[in-house]
Amino acid sequence: REGGGGSWSASPPPDSRRVCMIPWILLAIIMAPKAAQKRGDALWDPSWPEGSGERTIRERCEDASAPITLYCSWFCPFAQRAWIALEEKQVPYRYEEVNPYEVNPDLPGGYTKKALSLAEKTRLMPEFMAASPRGLVPAVSNRDGSSPVWESLHVVRYIDEAFDGPALLPSDPVQRAYVAIWSDHCTDRIQKNYYRMLMDQDPATQEAAKHDFYLECQRLAKAMDPSGPFFLGKDVCMVDIALAPFWQRIHWVGGHYRGLTLPDDADFQRLDLWWNAMQERPAFQRTLVSKPRLISSYSQYARNEGTSDYAR
Amino acid sequence: REGGGGSWSASPPPDSRRVCMIPWILLAIIMAPKAAQKRGDALWDPSWPEGSGERTIRERCEDASAPITLYCSWFCPFAQRAWIALEEKQVPYRYEEVNPYEVNPDLPGGYTKKALSLAEKTRLMPEFMAASPRGLVPAVSNRDGSSPVWESLHVVRYIDEAFDGPALLPSDPVQRAYVAIWSDHCTDRIQKNYYRMLMDQDPATQEAAKHDFYLECQRLAKAMDPSGPFFLGKDVCMVDIALAPFWQRIHWVGGHYRGLTLPDDADFQRLDLWWNAMQERPAFQRTLVSKPRLISSYSQYARNEGTSDYAR
Repeated sequence: REGGGGSWSASPPPDSRRVCMIPWILLAIIMAPKAAQKRGDALWDPSWPEGSGERTIRERCEDASAPITLYCSWFCPFAQRAWIALEEKQVPYRYEEVNPYEVNPDLPGGYTKKALSLAEKTRLMPEFMAASPRGLVPAVSNRDGSSPVWESLHVVRYIDEAFDGPALLPSDPVQRAYVAIWSDHCTDRIQKNYYRMLMDQDPATQEAAKHDFYLECQRLAKAMDPSGPFFLGKDVCMVDIALAPFWQRIHWVGGHYRGLTLPDDADFQRLDLWWNAMQERPAFQRTLVSKPRLISSYSQYARNEGTSDYAR
Repeated sequence: REGGGGSWSASPPPDSRRVCMIPWILLAIIMAPKAAQKRGDALWDPSWPEGSGERTIRERCEDASAPITLYCSWFCPFAQRAWIALEEKQVPYRYEEVNPYEVNPDLPGGYTKKALSLAEKTRLMPEFMAASPRGLVPAVSNRDGSSPVWESLHVVRYIDEAFDGPALLPSDPVQRAYVAIWSDHCTDRIQKNYYRMLMDQDPATQEAAKHDFYLECQRLAKAMDPSGPFFLGKDVCMVDIALAPFWQRIHWVGGHYRGLTLPDDADFQRLDLWWNAMQERPAFQRTLVSKPRLISSYSQYARNEGTSDYAR
């Protein structure tokens, strides 16, 4: 399930040249978790402005007294769901950056989509692996490592149930189920087709994925409270949090790599209303990383080299 | 997403023979939702004994005063989860049988795995489609059709939250998340590989699926309360309900078609302990349909003609 790993450093050298490979192997080990994370890092592209997401990370990664640790990857839309939930609930948390990929200094920021193996992750990030047995972000745990929770929507629901603050799920059981069903719809129906579209190089199947993507967006729009702006009406809920990181990427990345323009029917107008309101949420704003940096981290998809545990 | 439909009756007749086809088309329309459901039906194989599941269905399908309607298909392991939950909570429900497949009188019981289109389902079963917009079982609604909930684990959680009776999820948020994560594991990791194994005809990929299936079973066993017998210990929870219908099929169907024998290590011994206890639950027993009937309904998988919205 975990990707092969090791493509730029792991091909075994011919015996006669083994000694020469050692510095490269050492470099790979040292660099593995150290892609560019902030302005000033060796691999940070100086043309990238910092976003408010980077400022939030800097502020939160030092907070050793916070009761909860968020294991997050700045580029990951699933991890961003948990991040938004913590910000919406105003839960104090420590942000722990996880880089699940190999680093390649020849790529902008060092970002590859070549997943580290579970064994490499365990060696490099044992605390993270204890909190997330499959090695995927997001995960949360108590400061002492106890009470780990993983899988994005389960983390959001857990944060909602475990901490005070505005409710992210309603209290009525039918409404709770409705919110859970449509949150899953964002993952299983909308984003799955979006990633199919991004990762596919064949125009025909790309077009089929785009068709399904639009259809599932329209179904979601019809399930939304008609006057909105959010899924349930005036208050943000888990569905809004499930969708927002993807909608951000549709606007930032889909347009850049695939020339994606959304239809302009009543359903997409409803989604526009939602997106405009979502962008005004301070909690969501605090998770928005540098736009050119995010775009560059998706360049592998456009070359069809991208991997995602999700798209399998 | 819905299967093609129409394989035994829908190929358009040549113009010159249109008149002759009309009785066949009418027969197909009449037969569509009428595969064998109980002893005495035209398509019931007299060699099948009725199971306790059929007796429960007969008892529950007449209860027009029940507050909740369960839309179920007797052979479907996902639908059986909701069915078990209602039985565990002792919620009065009316059972409504949904046949999502075409009927072929040449097959035992008339059972095919050729899915009806959404349009056909809407024509034949409008109340069901109003309760389950994607046309999949299980779904529940109030007697008057209000408050529809669909997707098996969301239905189980809804039943737990909406009705009195023994809790199927614990009250502690961390424990609730843990139960939700491992319930999803049963769907996304264990059963997905099990169906890959059943549907695949190539021995090599069948073997790979079997390997992954065993691995994910072992991971689940390690997450279980060590003394058990159930996932959390003495009380049944959503994980037990998520897994039981599949474990039933592993024992009843996997052995029949694939000669599947489970390993005998400590993890599978833990699962044996669990399975022995699960089979003693009256609520689960009440959902066990006729064994040869269930086996026959899977014969398409062994011929690799099976379709499942799930395995895609």
